[in-house]
Amino acid sequence: MSIRRKKISIIGSGFTGATTALMLAQKELGDIVLVDIPQAEGPTKGKALDMAQAGPVEGFDAQVTGTVDYKDTAESDLVIITAGIARKPGMSRDDLVSTNAKVMRSVTEQVVKYSPNCTILVLTNPVDAMTYEVFRTSGFPKNRVIGQSGVLDTARFRTFVAQELNLSVEDVTGFVLGGHGDDMVPLVRYSYAGGIPLEKWLPQERLDAIVERTRKGGGEIVGLLGNGSAYYAPAASLVQMAEAILKDKRRVLPAIAYLEGEYGYKDMYLGVPVVLGGNGLEQIIELDLTEEEKAALDRSADSVRSVMKVLG
Amino acid sequence: MSIRRKKISIIGSGFTGATTALMLAQKELGDIVLVDIPQAEGPTKGKALDMAQAGPVEGFDAQVTGTVDYKDTAESDLVIITAGIARKPGMSRDDLVSTNAKVMRSVTEQVVKYSPNCTILVLTNPVDAMTYEVFRTSGFPKNRVIGQSGVLDTARFRTFVAQELNLSVEDVTGFVLGGHGDDMVPLVRYSYAGGIPLEKWLPQERLDAIVERTRKGGGEIVGLLGNGSAYYAPAASLVQMAEAILKDKRRVLPAIAYLEGEYGYKDMYLGVPVVLGGNGLEQIIELDLTEEEKAALDRSADSVRSVMKVLG
Amino acid sequence: MSIRRKKISIIGSGFTGATTALMLAQKELGDIVLVDIPQAEGPTKGKALDMAQAGPVEGFDAQVTGTVDYKDTAESDLVIITAGIARKPGMSRDDLVSTNAKVMRSVTEQVVKYSPNCTILVLTNPVDAMTYEVFRTSGFPKNRVIGQSGVLDTARFRTFVAQELNLSVEDVTGFVLGGHGDDMVPLVRYSYAGGIPLEKWLPQERLDAIVERTRKGGGEIVGLLGNGSAYYAPAASLVQMAEAILKDKRRVLPAIAYLEGEYGYKDMYLGVPVVLGGNGLEQIIELDLTEEEKAALDRSADSVRSVMKVLG
Amino acid sequence: MSIRRKKISIIGSGFTGATTALMLAQKELGDIVLVDIPQAEGPTKGKALDMAQAGPVEGFDAQVTGTVDYKDTAESDLVIITAGIARKPGMSRDDLVSTNAKVMRSVTEQVVKYSPNCTILVLTNPVDAMTYEVFRTSGFPKNRVIGQSGVLDTARFRTFVAQELNLSVEDVTGFVLGGHGDDMVPLVRYSYAGGIPLEKWLPQERLDAIVERTRKGGGEIVGLLGNGSAYYAPAASLVQMAEAILKDKRRVLPAIAYLEGEYGYKDMYLGVPVVLGGNGLEQIIELDLTEEEKAALDRSADSVRSVMKVLG
Repeated sequence: MSIRRKKISIIGSGFTGATTALMLAQKELGDIVLVDIPQAEGPTKGKALDMAQAGPVEGFDAQVTGTVDYKDTAESDLVIITAGIARKPGMSRDDLVSTNAKVMRSVTEQVVKYSPNCTILVLTNPVDAMTYEVFRTSGFPKNRVIGQSGVLDTARFRTFVAQELNLSVEDVTGFVLGGHGDDMVPLVRYSYAGGIPLEKWLPQERLDAIVERTRKGGGEIVGLLGNGSAYYAPAASLVQMAEAILKDKRRVLPAIAYLEGEYGYKDMYLGVPVVLGGNGLEQIIELDLTEEEKAALDRSADSVRSVMKVLG
Repeated sequence: MSIRRKKISIIGSGFTGATTALMLAQKELGDIVLVDIPQAEGPTKGKALDMAQAGPVEGFDAQVTGTVDYKDTAESDLVIITAGIARKPGMSRDDLVSTNAKVMRSVTEQVVKYSPNCTILVLTNPVDAMTYEVFRTSGFPKNRVIGQSGVLDTARFRTFVAQELNLSVEDVTGFVLGGHGDDMVPLVRYSYAGGIPLEKWLPQERLDAIVERTRKGGGEIVGLLGNGSAYYAPAASLVQMAEAILKDKRRVLPAIAYLEGEYGYKDMYLGVPVVLGGNGLEQIIELDLTEEEKAALDRSADSVRSVMKVLG
Repeated sequence: MSIRRKKISIIGSGFTGATTALMLAQKELGDIVLVDIPQAEGPTKGKALDMAQAGPVEGFDAQVTGTVDYKDTAESDLVIITAGIARKPGMSRDDLVSTNAKVMRSVTEQVVKYSPNCTILVLTNPVDAMTYEVFRTSGFPKNRVIGQSGVLDTARFRTFVAQELNLSVEDVTGFVLGGHGDDMVPLVRYSYAGGIPLEKWLPQERLDAIVERTRKGGGEIVGLLGNGSAYYAPAASLVQMAEAILKDKRRVLPAIAYLEGEYGYKDMYLGVPVVLGGNGLEQIIELDLTEEEKAALDRSADSVRSVMKVLG
Repeated sequence: MSIRRKKISIIGSGFTGATTALMLAQKELGDIVLVDIPQAEGPTKGKALDMAQAGPVEGFDAQVTGTVDYKDTAESDLVIITAGIARKPGMSRDDLVSTNAKVMRSVTEQVVKYSPNCTILVLTNPVDAMTYEVFRTSGFPKNRVIGQSGVLDTARFRTFVAQELNLSVEDVTGFVLGGHGDDMVPLVRYSYAGGIPLEKWLPQERLDAIVERTRKGGGEIVGLLGNGSAYYAPAASLVQMAEAILKDKRRVLPAIAYLEGEYGYKDMYLGVPVVLGGNGLEQIIELDLTEEEKAALDRSADSVRSVMKVLG
């Protein structure tokens, strides 16, 4: 039997999409198709070609193709959606939601048409609602439509803690529930350095400050860049989830999952700890929450629901 | 004795500089300082922070710092110069040369002041002349000032050949002498797939077409991107040279080296095969050239000299 | 659709088999089943368990299982045969051939029974004849039964040259045709350092000495070890071939291939340059040989045929 | 300034020493010198040569040298001691201790003579006492003499838990204090899967069974191998500690450290959580223990002290 390389399509060839493509290629997780709208054909093809030319030097074998034709995504094993617009000054939240929801619907229709058996990862903001829209449009089972937010939030948290303690990032962990950014519900009691709870390492006020900085982590980067948002850590986060699925690793990671009663919520997407493996989202892990944590998670869920209302 | 991590400073935080930083961090080659001018302070710091936040997920330990103060580069082991402007429509070549030479001088003075023992890699175009300017300004011995062009040119050549033959990029090699891009002197007789000379794999007309496409490889990407030039493959090329030096690998790579009679040229920088290791450029490899090759290399050298005249 | 990890079975849990398992696991190329005869059940399981316990520290996800039951190899994608005995003092060559051929037949029957679609790599000596025996027993098409010898021979050659020139092993290549070890036909004219033919780097007498040392490379290790033969470089060589197949890389490597007229030989296995990819051996590359090279290859082929006669 | 590759000497070229050398070379952490006694000169050189020949194929640049002359270890940055005998049937514990202590003394004298600035890692059993003996003989400060046991014990624990839960080993952690094996004091409350305490994942009786199996983990492998003890996971454990030091990672790992009052013990070596970085053992982390844990640690310390008495 012939062995076929995995195929991964990335919808949206902006900084995050392109950086995701690079990191996937570096890990030789499969051949990459970078897709964007016809107006962006040149840059999409240019980035793909430039990236392919890094292959001989970085030492990776991966075809990297830029395209504006969804036919080229046919039979993808994994599709990562980064397309959509960022909120611009003066734009209402509802306008943002409506615009990106429309993007999700049109992208998903094309994706499903050409790759009916793929798993989909969604990054587009507001990500809980957008993942729901992709799920609804795709008709896919819930294990094959998953959103990213918690890996990124904890990556930022881990970086801040590791810098504060001057320790390897490998030995610092974080834990988060609920929505992305402002809505995130950190479980500091499940966050460690060298397996030792962070409360033993840092006074509560420093932990609070780090949690607060993490909540605003996306905004901090936006403020610095001046023109655009973060892409290195978001891309790395998508790639970690992609690797867990493509290598059937059964990793325990935070992800935006479709809930059917777990944690007391129904018919919505929300950030929870899950197991990611060859079947996509293989399991949702339910934790006992303190009253305070449950209240924070309720607020996060309310916030997601209010965005979902815009979707109709 | 304490073991200190290597320190690498990258001057210029544009796409190439930032991508170089990412790839160096991924390989844990050292801590990274990304430097730019005061006007670019926000984006420089933003990219560095975003990149650092990819560390816990990608699994690398490396401090990545953005700065506009050269003090932060103090005691770097390696400095990579990517700063400078790209040629804009309507700008004469001499204006480009003058502007970037000025940048090289001011950057080099700062670099040398804070890292008198570092090795310097130069990417800024026109790279042969700019490497010369850095050399002249630095007062460094010739083994510690090196330019990049051949690794990138051969990376493009290898990609095109591997695609044409449908073979792994790992098994395709290329060989180039002389200046970058249009001026490059390809030695196809020293280029192979699986160790077998390319002439056995491809008819001469296809090889000629691939050489021609390689010459124009930078322009092809510029044309596609519309607004900017290649950065993935240039960054990977810088990183391969950096790794050879920082790990003292004694790799045989094409590089822009200071010539003192080698190949018949004196007091100029030109692309030749060299050995890169812990002492920087450890050896220039001299080849017997055919008459045709020597004539092409002469033309390339003339072209470099005419740019150098602008420098005075 | 669910994504399944690749499965690789290794027949023979001696030093080479076990080291091959380790290197495959480190690269996360799939789950590993290490198989041996019932008398070796304990050590086989012990090595597998010890290796699995290295996983959390080395950072690889791979099940490593030791077994004496071929059922556990069911549906392997790739099977690597390292089983067989080494020649003992006083044993005739024909006895060695007969004994190992018997091992090949019994192993192959079991492998084929449980993994009718796998590709098989053979290392057992005398490897050209043993690969033929596996091919004949399996009834598999020729692209799915491949022997290893040239990757190892060139690895030794490359090591010796790199040490002599004090250069990175990455930049030194070698090229070999024909049988393993003493029978090997080196093509020094297709061997390079930094793409430059070795004749430019080393005088002929040094090259001759290195070729001679390479021919006897296996014996040199046997002589040093005193009790056993090489396993690190043989394992690495198997893993490079395995990776080319499992990742569909289409690498150009020397391998022992079934010939049907190529190079003038028929119905036998012999070392030639091939393309390895997702279909196993995808292509045999035919080179024009000098008269001297052809004569040497004829001698090598005669030697293989004389061993095959013992097989009947 | 020239950049010098790190140098790592490994004393004892048995399975563990040789596997450690391989893993260090694969990670390009430095050049390797494998040392053994004159009677083992052949195998030591044979393994080193075989391993070096894996370099071109595995893609690593590292000199690997086998020697019986400590001169060749001169100016090592790190020295790893794996030499010593294993307990044989009928041998008293005291005989084992005396014999290996003698080995430690003679090895350490040579190591210190040629590498007065190195850091030393000790694996030889009984490891707490042997590390003490190396410390005492070397005259080195305590940060530069460190023993290995906890990384291996937790690696086994993590493997068993990951298999039980069918999860990635990357997401399972363990925590252990005190001596190696039977004497180990597991802190299950500081052990997690995906950051969630193991008590939430497994019933107490399963956790107890896994702890018990971990305690006897070395013996399980010995029983299976029949003739010898584990080497893959021990080597990986040494390499993780070596990497933390050589790359100045400041990792939080369990290690055998010299105590001067920490945890209530003085002038002895015992397993505790530490920070490993460029200065070797940079910090001991003190935890509040429950009464039960403290009692278990006391027993472990008593056991170490009773072995130390044999040393005099």
